[in-house]
Amino acid sequence: MAKAPNAARRSESSRRAILTATQELCGENGYRRVTVEAIAARAGVSKKTIYRWWPSKGAVVLEILDEAASITADPPDTGDLAADLHTQLTEVIGLLAPSHTSPAAGLIAEALQDPDLGRELRERVIEPRIAKFRERLRRAQQQGQLSPDADLDVALDLLYGPLYHRLAFHLGMPDPDYLDTLIAHALRSLTPPDSTN
Amino acid sequence: MAKAPNAARRSESSRRAILTATQELCGENGYRRVTVEAIAARAGVSKKTIYRWWPSKGAVVLEILDEAASITADPPDTGDLAADLHTQLTEVIGLLAPSHTSPAAGLIAEALQDPDLGRELRERVIEPRIAKFRERLRRAQQQGQLSPDADLDVALDLLYGPLYHRLAFHLGMPDPDYLDTLIAHALRSLTPPDSTN
Repeated sequence: MAKAPNAARRSESSRRAILTATQELCGENGYRRVTVEAIAARAGVSKKTIYRWWPSKGAVVLEILDEAASITADPPDTGDLAADLHTQLTEVIGLLAPSHTSPAAGLIAEALQDPDLGRELRERVIEPRIAKFRERLRRAQQQGQLSPDADLDVALDLLYGPLYHRLAFHLGMPDPDYLDTLIAHALRSLTPPDSTN
Repeated sequence: MAKAPNAARRSESSRRAILTATQELCGENGYRRVTVEAIAARAGVSKKTIYRWWPSKGAVVLEILDEAASITADPPDTGDLAADLHTQLTEVIGLLAPSHTSPAAGLIAEALQDPDLGRELRERVIEPRIAKFRERLRRAQQQGQLSPDADLDVALDLLYGPLYHRLAFHLGMPDPDYLDTLIAHALRSLTPPDSTN
């Protein structure tokens, strides 16, 4: 019984070393040039240790993204919807830039070419966050900050869409002022035209 | 003097064969698995011929995309802005799906990891199309279909964004009804709140 906690601690410290090494190597060389071999060398573990926990480099990066995108797993709620969206989208922008060294952008690129990784990205990282986003917007509806008739699917598409359009075509991420402009437009669009408020 | 037209014809037929072979191979195997060797074999040309015209597989696919995305190079203008946007976005959706065999999605993925290819994609394919999109919206402003105060940068981000957000996270492309819903929201957002119309 005395051994289990130590083994767990050792595992956790290896896990952290692997995630840190992967993140560093992405930042230095870009996702594409990172190899499991280089991760193992940097983390001071064997390749076998990595493959014991993750099937591929993409799976390691998926875990990094899942941890890094913590704000979208637990969206802020100060009672000011526009300000909270600004905070949240600013963090996401930070995860996506610069695109050729961002682990998130590397994973998105890899998953576009790998349907299994794409499915895992959607199911494990994105769908739970979309559910949290919808909860946040429903609270805003209850608080009268968002029309009760607002289409929450459209809200997601209009608020998040610009970031990924800009990522895909290297158009630069929104600066803080322009981000506010985008949020104001998206929120305005969600108030039905025949609404009195 | 008699030789030049024949040489040009031969070149054009090789060029077409290379583009067709590349498009077919992307559709069959996905962009990532396509090699310049396989393109040469399918097109019946030498690898040297391909590299004479293009520096890489990505450059060949960029030329395919530039030709295929003809609607965005010359946006429809029937006088009905929402309908024209529906037509245009539907064609773009067709270019992006399914993501793992779409040459466009493959190129987007590759360019996320290759800043030079990303710059070429932006400068050669995207920026000229954004200029055309703005021209189309300016005509809509002149025709009274869009507020003269509408922010055309926001228009681009809100109308195109949803497609790329959905592409990045494997959320499925909008169906025709939902696409109309998105367009209606985006256009509504572009009318300033203190506008009387």
